[in-house]
Amino acid sequence: MSASSGADSLLTIDIGAIVANWRTLDTRSGTSTETAGVVKADAYGLDATQVAPQLAAAGCQTFFVMSLAEAVALRTSLGQAGHGTARILTLSGCHKGQEADFIHHDIMPVINSLQQAGRLDTFARESGSKISAALQDTLDDANQVQLDQFQRIRTFFSQATASLANSGGILLGKAFHEDLTRPGIALYGLHPADTNDDIGVGPDAGLLKPAVTWQARILQLRQVSAGDKVGYNGTHQMTRDGQIMTLGVGYADGYPRALGNRAKVVVAGREAPVVGRVSMDSITVDVTDIPAQILEHQTMATVLGETYPLARMAADAGTIGYEILTQLGRRPERRFLTA
Amino acid sequence: MSASSGADSLLTIDIGAIVANWRTLDTRSGTSTETAGVVKADAYGLDATQVAPQLAAAGCQTFFVMSLAEAVALRTSLGQAGHGTARILTLSGCHKGQEADFIHHDIMPVINSLQQAGRLDTFARESGSKISAALQDTLDDANQVQLDQFQRIRTFFSQATASLANSGGILLGKAFHEDLTRPGIALYGLHPADTNDDIGVGPDAGLLKPAVTWQARILQLRQVSAGDKVGYNGTHQMTRDGQIMTLGVGYADGYPRALGNRAKVVVAGREAPVVGRVSMDSITVDVTDIPAQILEHQTMATVLGETYPLARMAADAGTIGYEILTQLGRRPERRFLTA
Repeated sequence: MSASSGADSLLTIDIGAIVANWRTLDTRSGTSTETAGVVKADAYGLDATQVAPQLAAAGCQTFFVMSLAEAVALRTSLGQAGHGTARILTLSGCHKGQEADFIHHDIMPVINSLQQAGRLDTFARESGSKISAALQDTLDDANQVQLDQFQRIRTFFSQATASLANSGGILLGKAFHEDLTRPGIALYGLHPADTNDDIGVGPDAGLLKPAVTWQARILQLRQVSAGDKVGYNGTHQMTRDGQIMTLGVGYADGYPRALGNRAKVVVAGREAPVVGRVSMDSITVDVTDIPAQILEHQTMATVLGETYPLARMAADAGTIGYEILTQLGRRPERRFLTA
Repeated sequence: MSASSGADSLLTIDIGAIVANWRTLDTRSGTSTETAGVVKADAYGLDATQVAPQLAAAGCQTFFVMSLAEAVALRTSLGQAGHGTARILTLSGCHKGQEADFIHHDIMPVINSLQQAGRLDTFARESGSKISAALQDTLDDANQVQLDQFQRIRTFFSQATASLANSGGILLGKAFHEDLTRPGIALYGLHPADTNDDIGVGPDAGLLKPAVTWQARILQLRQVSAGDKVGYNGTHQMTRDGQIMTLGVGYADGYPRALGNRAKVVVAGREAPVVGRVSMDSITVDVTDIPAQILEHQTMATVLGETYPLARMAADAGTIGYEILTQLGRRPERRFLTA
């Protein structure tokens, strides 16, 4: 972010890293297994209109989203980028009344229930139009009569794929892949095992490239005295004289409120603790231990990046990296590094 | 949301309620006190391009945002709606390099630090261009030399307002208002006292109209048996045979992950508990106590609304309503009810 940018924080999204992660996962699969890309939830918060065309350019031919609305938006993005033949599947299925849109936009539903399967069967008989579909392998409410109906439907669903391995499944090994793998979180640089008690360890540590760096503008730097209360509602009290930095990022930007008095930020390569509450638009950081002659040249601090990665931020917030990514706000400026 | 909508959840945003709340707060202020509108963070997540023009049409002449980027976007929205003369102030101030944009778009910074004040002073001397500004009354780092400089700067700042009461200040009474009030959260229907231990009580209960209703599509309804585990990772175990409903809303939509096993939803006027974890795209609800003949006619459930209001959702999530509003996602369909 340049100093003159109108925003108070900057998300740098490395699409090159996402494409590299897709290639890494594709290499791990058997040659007969296709590697799809999950770009639901706006590519896990990172902007599907930017991510999907570059995955398609790298060879990804099948994309998963959740809803019809996401699928239609994706069809437009891919079409404009010259990838109109890509397959798009909705994990939410095809709901009553949506059938014509699925056909018009060439979207395939993943069938999750026998009710949905039955409805598509009826639609095909009545309209003479077939909707291509994929079958979820976890249909748990079937009896024999229903299974017979299901098998009948299956015969006219094109390219039905029996099992779809997600990021965790891919990393478990080839036996779990079957026809098609559908990596999601791993594309975006987070190992599925990077949960709160297992951060960046194990045989796959370093396998995936992180895709997001988040920097915030230094809004203010001020001297405080021992005993002063800091931050919204004064939940932190200084135990020594020091220096407090206010950064232009808050929970309205997607910086979790749960990080108050818990997270770290990085200023000029040095870690400093967030003190006090996270407010809607800003956080306060104790930078007493960073020399003034270093601080005075800084205009930004890093709130998420190599030194303080997503898994660590999620652990400090008591949640998972998936939630942090998908909750990244619209207010930060976004810069995309292309593949 | 119609059944054929492409989205899996629907946010209904009642701009008429927001305008009515603004009028209520305006009536509470003295006649010499102007009532502004805080529309930072995209009008607390509810869409500033929709909210601000209708507040302006109701008589609101001054708007607060956080950053220059928000201010420029707002200037465009207001201009297109015929309210080009409205004042727009940035709570984040004017940062180095932004001065020309503040002048070009006629934006006023709120000055939070003497460093900012000094820089605008220098800019005015060197460029011959003055930037109108407002002064924050909590400049806590001033010594006498700096205060002298501050007073000199103040003489050429137009319309300087000495104190700006927020929602809480307005409701404390007229003595707290001074020149200008700047309601934020109250506009959006949440009383500032609606914190976790004080929900909708006190003399102002019912004063403000809630602005948001959120409904989610019923994706699936299935029979489960006592002992079955429900939801992502099976964190909930059924103690009886029953019925589980899957709704198309998850943390990627802004439905907090912390609501797993805690929140309630409303189906056909009846409350039912969220069971199991909140996943990225869906939640699971125990609807065993709702008769099947009622359930079979439903296509949607309400996850936020009159029966399960914002303050209650926030309390169940261990956060505040402000965070829930500002984190509402972009994936839900949005319908705006106009004033």
